[in-house]
Amino acid sequence: SHAKERTSGIAISQLIPLYKQASQAASTYYEHALKAVTPNIAPQGKIDRNLMESEQRATHGLGWMCAYVETLVQTYHWANTLAEANNFSETDALLSQILFAEYLKQLTCGIPMTQCEIVRPSDLGMDQDLINHFANNPAISTLTRLGDTSQIRKRAAQLIKEAQGKATVENTNLDETLTMVRDQFRKFADEKIVPYAHEWHLKDQLIPINILNEMSELGVFGLTIPEEFGGFGMGKMAMCVVSEELSRGYIGVGSLGTRSEIAAELILNGGTFAQKQSFLPKIASGEILPTAVFTEPNTGSDLGALRTRATLKNDYWSVTGNKTWITHAARSDLMTVLARTKPDTKDFRGLSMFLAEKPRGSNDNPFPADGMTGGEIEVLGYRGMKEYELGFDGFQIPKENLLGGEAGDGMGFKYLMATFEGARIQTAARAIGTAQLALELGLKYALDRQQFGGPIFNFPRVQDKLVMMAAELVGVRQLTYYSARKKDSGQRCDLEAGMAKLIGARVAWAAADNALQIHGGNGFALEYEISRVLCDARILNIFEGAGEVQAMVIARRSIEEHLQRQRKSL
Amino acid sequence: SHAKERTSGIAISQLIPLYKQASQAASTYYEHALKAVTPNIAPQGKIDRNLMESEQRATHGLGWMCAYVETLVQTYHWANTLAEANNFSETDALLSQILFAEYLKQLTCGIPMTQCEIVRPSDLGMDQDLINHFANNPAISTLTRLGDTSQIRKRAAQLIKEAQGKATVENTNLDETLTMVRDQFRKFADEKIVPYAHEWHLKDQLIPINILNEMSELGVFGLTIPEEFGGFGMGKMAMCVVSEELSRGYIGVGSLGTRSEIAAELILNGGTFAQKQSFLPKIASGEILPTAVFTEPNTGSDLGALRTRATLKNDYWSVTGNKTWITHAARSDLMTVLARTKPDTKDFRGLSMFLAEKPRGSNDNPFPADGMTGGEIEVLGYRGMKEYELGFDGFQIPKENLLGGEAGDGMGFKYLMATFEGARIQTAARAIGTAQLALELGLKYALDRQQFGGPIFNFPRVQDKLVMMAAELVGVRQLTYYSARKKDSGQRCDLEAGMAKLIGARVAWAAADNALQIHGGNGFALEYEISRVLCDARILNIFEGAGEVQAMVIARRSIEEHLQRQRKSL
Ligand SMILES: Cc1cc2nc3c(=O)[nH]c(=O)nc-3n(C[C@H](O)[C@H](O)[C@H](O)COP(=O)(O)OP(=O)(O)OC[C@H]3O[C@@H](n4cnc5c(N)ncnc54)[C@H](O)[C@@H]3O)c2cc1C
Ligand SMILES: Cc1cc2nc3c(=O)[nH]c(=O)nc-3n(C[C@H](O)[C@H](O)[C@H](O)COP(=O)(O)OP(=O)(O)OC[C@H]3O[C@@H](n4cnc5c(N)ncnc54)[C@H](O)[C@@H]3O)c2cc1C
Ligand SMILES: CC(C)(COP(=O)(O)OP(=O)(O)OC[C@H]1O[C@@H](n2cnc3c(N)ncnc32)[C@H](O)[C@@H]1OP(=O)(O)O)[C@@H](O)C(=O)NCCC(=O)NCCS
Ligand SMILES: CC(C)(COP(=O)(O)OP(=O)(O)OC[C@H]1O[C@@H](n2cnc3c(N)ncnc32)[C@H](O)[C@@H]1OP(=O)(O)O)[C@@H](O)C(=O)NCCC(=O)NCCS
Repeated sequence: SHAKERTSGIAISQLIPLYKQASQAASTYYEHALKAVTPNIAPQGKIDRNLMESEQRATHGLGWMCAYVETLVQTYHWANTLAEANNFSETDALLSQILFAEYLKQLTCGIPMTQCEIVRPSDLGMDQDLINHFANNPAISTLTRLGDTSQIRKRAAQLIKEAQGKATVENTNLDETLTMVRDQFRKFADEKIVPYAHEWHLKDQLIPINILNEMSELGVFGLTIPEEFGGFGMGKMAMCVVSEELSRGYIGVGSLGTRSEIAAELILNGGTFAQKQSFLPKIASGEILPTAVFTEPNTGSDLGALRTRATLKNDYWSVTGNKTWITHAARSDLMTVLARTKPDTKDFRGLSMFLAEKPRGSNDNPFPADGMTGGEIEVLGYRGMKEYELGFDGFQIPKENLLGGEAGDGMGFKYLMATFEGARIQTAARAIGTAQLALELGLKYALDRQQFGGPIFNFPRVQDKLVMMAAELVGVRQLTYYSARKKDSGQRCDLEAGMAKLIGARVAWAAADNALQIHGGNGFALEYEISRVLCDARILNIFEGAGEVQAMVIARRSIEEHLQRQRKSL
Repeated sequence: SHAKERTSGIAISQLIPLYKQASQAASTYYEHALKAVTPNIAPQGKIDRNLMESEQRATHGLGWMCAYVETLVQTYHWANTLAEANNFSETDALLSQILFAEYLKQLTCGIPMTQCEIVRPSDLGMDQDLINHFANNPAISTLTRLGDTSQIRKRAAQLIKEAQGKATVENTNLDETLTMVRDQFRKFADEKIVPYAHEWHLKDQLIPINILNEMSELGVFGLTIPEEFGGFGMGKMAMCVVSEELSRGYIGVGSLGTRSEIAAELILNGGTFAQKQSFLPKIASGEILPTAVFTEPNTGSDLGALRTRATLKNDYWSVTGNKTWITHAARSDLMTVLARTKPDTKDFRGLSMFLAEKPRGSNDNPFPADGMTGGEIEVLGYRGMKEYELGFDGFQIPKENLLGGEAGDGMGFKYLMATFEGARIQTAARAIGTAQLALELGLKYALDRQQFGGPIFNFPRVQDKLVMMAAELVGVRQLTYYSARKKDSGQRCDLEAGMAKLIGARVAWAAADNALQIHGGNGFALEYEISRVLCDARILNIFEGAGEVQAMVIARRSIEEHLQRQRKSL
């Protein structure tokens, strides 16, 4: 390898070629996994969804394995780029080698999909020789034996401590513009969010409107909207960096942009020119706050089955049905409503998307529109915008507000699925911000808290927790940035977005859980922020497609691509 | 083996001999683990605590391994006893073989100590041949290959569904008396606790006093107090069963007895006859509600370092210092206070225990005693008794209320450590009750909730979660009952109690986390009980000795026993 490595200290030398070999071997190993699983669930060369479902441990496990391998591949690319620019520091080296060592071990020994479900290669029908062959690959055995020793973790912990106050422990290698964006939003969060967020949470308040106004001024809501429609025309990478930093302040604030992203994407993907012109500039400026109205009491994961009806009556659509879990529903001006326009259908093919304007609600009168009622759902965390149940009873939407016009009739679900890609990437970034916050709170507490004659930071069990948080952050950042670039390239990327969302949610949850553990009893006190972060982190594996749905989507798409490759090679 | 197995269906045949071989092999494997770790941390044949600390991944990992192996051993004994009585059902067989398969795999592949820290045998310095030898043991390879297939889990899920409404899925094989106790308290919980608990939690209320009165009548507070002092004289097994069932109703209720247990144990272990006579009958009857006053703002895990002083002034002790995290401090009549009576000491040797009476506080005046103030700490979960910070400033305790009289001066910590054994066993039982509740809530929701055309119960990913909860419950119950019997035998059992507490806390947390996941978005709504159970479950790995402290205690004691055996065999 021509990569120049500047690492010193106790990192393994010549890491980059090891990463290259290991991630190549991991990709090959994953091909074997695909070959083991696919025949069982696509005996005719096409996925049989019933078989896919009856073998979920194997198929969802495949999804997880796919995400792990991609994390390593992307971490390798990142390390290589840094090394070529002579910028691969000891910190970068140690954290990434720890990540490689741990994930490589999990690939052979078992990946915890949840705390109750560890998937192992044998569950996928991979045979032992294959696993041994992988484990004995020289690069892999070097990384797993030497990558993550107690000495390495101790040194890594020291470096994490020295990085206290920095936005990221590792060098994320962003370009100048994105670095400026990160710094700007970190500063904003430190000044305007961090000092108040916990109180908003404890009092279950809406995030103050002046924060939203300042965010509008900073351009948060128009970040990825093209300049011709009043936005900044930046890519999804910028969205990630902004979402990370705002969520590091408070997930509620980092999520304010989500609904604008969804509405703008929907309109960009499916809207008529008139719809773009009329809505996008106002969304970009923050004048219009959107809310995303999809889920129903009986329809969450299986969104395609939803039953809210929209019936065309002369010049308006009349909407009747119940929605639930609608975030920021009261204080918003525009609903993106998914409803059934073809009454004789039961699946996604009969759904359409509406751009339904409504008067912004107040505390006293949250839902002033005719034909529409609503009630708050009290929640564990992820407060700040509030969630609502909504009831529509003959609610009117002007005819022209069907997304895509007449051509959009029946297209709503597809528009939405493409839009969910961006939303899931953004959710991964929110997860990263949440995990980063957990790391920072855990580190600070560990350095301050004395027990047995010194700071608890000195205990290996405390260091190990912090080190794994920082190491996993390296990987999930690169995975998420990769999915963002893919989205920017215009290609379908539910596979990549799903991976980032899946891993992000797990990383954030593990980080919050462990940072709370570092706090001991104080972690359980509402007074300490980490008690909120635990609650906030728990949502990430549920909304925007639960972990199980994500694993399914990844596996489906990956198997489809595999089948396509097979067909081509015939 | 002479054990008669009646299992039918798809369980592995001849399970009992397999369990016997596998648990013996696991014990041998653990001996190897001890041999790998011990020389590094006891080079002189005595534990060097600095070395033990600097190698915490290995030493704490050893503690975890110890607990896993004991779980399997106890599960084998249970299965064998049932089989000999011709009572080993298909449900018992499937759940236990799943548990064996999973834990055996974790013993070679990695045990998640937390979501960020997976310990593998290589971390303990065990070499690969040893690991392979273990994995290739015929019984172990049979169990790991065949014990936990998707077919097996599917059948197990069906049986769990059929067991809905029963106190335990498996046959716990209690004697007639204990079965009656279980039924009685399950009934009590269903009638008096379950319908109200969630509201107590949401309103952050004290559990109503009439519930405590009814519990007094049921004998909860005197369960393990000898009959001569007004109790029922039952063993710790009864305490476990009662704690399980009350905690299955609500952890707050299941924890009401904890402080009475602690106070009674302290007095039984260390008290003078006069102290026994004066306090025990009132504790047994529930007339006196005790509170446990140990932790300080700067002293949690390192309890021996605490600084609250008690100074003898003529006929009373004057107490000055700050305590924190004191559960049920206001509505209680007797404080067991640990304080420093030897001002020139800094460690556990200078501590003494006091039986400090105080007037019961009310909502308006929570701390009416002179020399004592207090303030509530708001918490995530584990509500119902409330936690408080306390300030003592010249608070007076009569001279004779030093536990153990003059002989007790400086003995407080040792009395307490022996007492913690019982408290930790009781905490394990609380964890079991919490996990059982999570399982029941998850099962019920999974059967009710429809998605993709049928109950989500039908999805393997949902079933797998429920099955692992039920399987882990089998193991941790037997481990906990084992520790209870050990305690009843009068032997020191911080090792066994620590194991039960450690595994119990993890099992409960994993169960709550996964049952919430099964609830999807509704799991995040305060309205649903599972949102509370998640919060309640989180405390178990923190109080009564955090998970890290537990692992340390287990490892220390196990290594000490190992060294002793080594010395004897020389
Ligand atoms: C705080 C919060 C905010 C939200 N905000 C919004 C919003 O603004 N707009 C909006 O439209 N929605 C919103 N949602 C809804 C969210 O998207 C849904 O909760 C989510 O999609 C899951 O659906 P569900 O809750 O119906 O769970 P269910 O679909 O009922 O799933 C329950 C469980 O079953 C599992 N499961 C389901 N199907 C399968 C399968 N095929 N195989 C295996 N397992 C399966 C799930 O993974 C989950 O564990 C929000 C939810 C929450 C909690
Ligand atoms: C809800 C609640 C109720 C409670 N009720 C009572 C009560 O009634 N009476 C009472 O006296 N106390 C009570 N406690 C206190 C409880 O026992 C302590 O919180 C617990 O012992 C941990 O101590 P700490 O909080 O000071 O954590 P710390 O000791 O500060 O520990 C912080 C972190 O450091 C880790 N750590 C500490 N030492 C080591 C080490 N040597 N190696 C590795 N890691 C280490 C811990 O495991 C933990 O993760 C309660 C606590 C809570 C939260
Ligand atoms: C489960 C789920 C993935 C869809 O599964 P499904 O009903 O089996 O749907 P399919 O995968 O068959 O997709 C339906 C159609 O959309 C298309 N589609 C799916 N994802 C797409 C994407 N990312 N881009 C473009 N088209 C897409 C499919 O190709 C298919 O069209 P086709 O049959 O013409 O090929 C979806 O319902 C989902 O994401 N659920 C979670 C809900 C959620 O995230 N809610 C958050 C609310 S804020
Ligand atoms: C960390 C901890 C285990 C003690 O560690 P330590 O300070 O190193 O104490 P040691 O292990 O050296 O024990 C001190 C003495 O008590 C004795 N002891 C400890 N456990 C004992 C037991 N179960 N039975 C009898 N004696 C015991 C020891 O033998 C030792 O005495 P020795 O030196 O005469 O042999 C203890 O402080 C602890 O449990 N912390 C958690 C606090 C907690 O659970 N709080 C809950 C409040 S509700």
